[in-house]
Amino acid sequence: MAIEIERKFLVDKEKWQQLEKPTPMHLRQGYIFSDESKTIRLRIADDQAFITIKGSTTGMSRSEFEYAIPVADAAQMLDDLAVSELEKYRYNITYSGKLWEVDVFLGDNQGLVVAEIELDSEDEEFELPLWVTTEVTGDKRYYNSKLSIHPFKNWD
Amino acid sequence: MAIEIERKFLVDKEKWQQLEKPTPMHLRQGYIFSDESKTIRLRIADDQAFITIKGSTTGMSRSEFEYAIPVADAAQMLDDLAVSELEKYRYNITYSGKLWEVDVFLGDNQGLVVAEIELDSEDEEFELPLWVTTEVTGDKRYYNSKLSIHPFKNWD
Repeated sequence: MAIEIERKFLVDKEKWQQLEKPTPMHLRQGYIFSDESKTIRLRIADDQAFITIKGSTTGMSRSEFEYAIPVADAAQMLDDLAVSELEKYRYNITYSGKLWEVDVFLGDNQGLVVAEIELDSEDEEFELPLWVTTEVTGDKRYYNSKLSIHPFKNWD
Repeated sequence: MAIEIERKFLVDKEKWQQLEKPTPMHLRQGYIFSDESKTIRLRIADDQAFITIKGSTTGMSRSEFEYAIPVADAAQMLDDLAVSELEKYRYNITYSGKLWEVDVFLGDNQGLVVAEIELDSEDEEFELPLWVTTEVTGDKRYYNSKLSIHPFKNWD
């Protein structure tokens, strides 16, 4: 089990486009179950797959249990058991010694680019890259489980 | 992924008591989620633990995905995320070349003893041990996920 402490920001798409970027991973992920208290996620990341159980979010923190599983199992559970899913490209970018995960969403969430930084404590200080803008930590609309059900293209 | 084909029977408790039995495993199991279409189960079996995702039952068959996980993770998810749980002793008994799993339930399900046989096909023939009685395959009251919510002691 891990405690995941994350902060989440929107990305300035113009600045992002000008950035030199590494090759992204392709992520397909879906949810077998999701409510306020927990989420059960399946993710295929290129040629690897994982099942992840997350507890409820308190502030920026959330308990997370993640296990590698066969890709074929994940694909079949996504096809047969997931209630919703989404796809995105993920870029892992190191900035000022910290890892940023930048998700460029696809499909019905196309147009949305979100950057997350994982922290060691809630009060850890870090440097903001020039290409991040508004903080959206805690905004439930940006939870991936929500984006899979109520995608960006349907937002007002 | 496996397709699980099972038949389930009640056990004659007098005959069962007279039987010479192996040492059972102690199972503690609970459900993070359970409805008609799928079940997500955590199980601690003595010093091992598993997460198991099952699809809906069609006849005697059900898709099943099972992964070994750390016992400490399973215990924490059972404590923090499970909506219901139960405990039982499990006896693995080979009879006429087939494995029978006999569950002697504890706690609020005390008094219930159920035997399951796993088959290779739905029409596979097998020999019934003298200590099994009524078949209860497909009777939802005997689903472990149901017994964890509506235990045997509350039955009419």
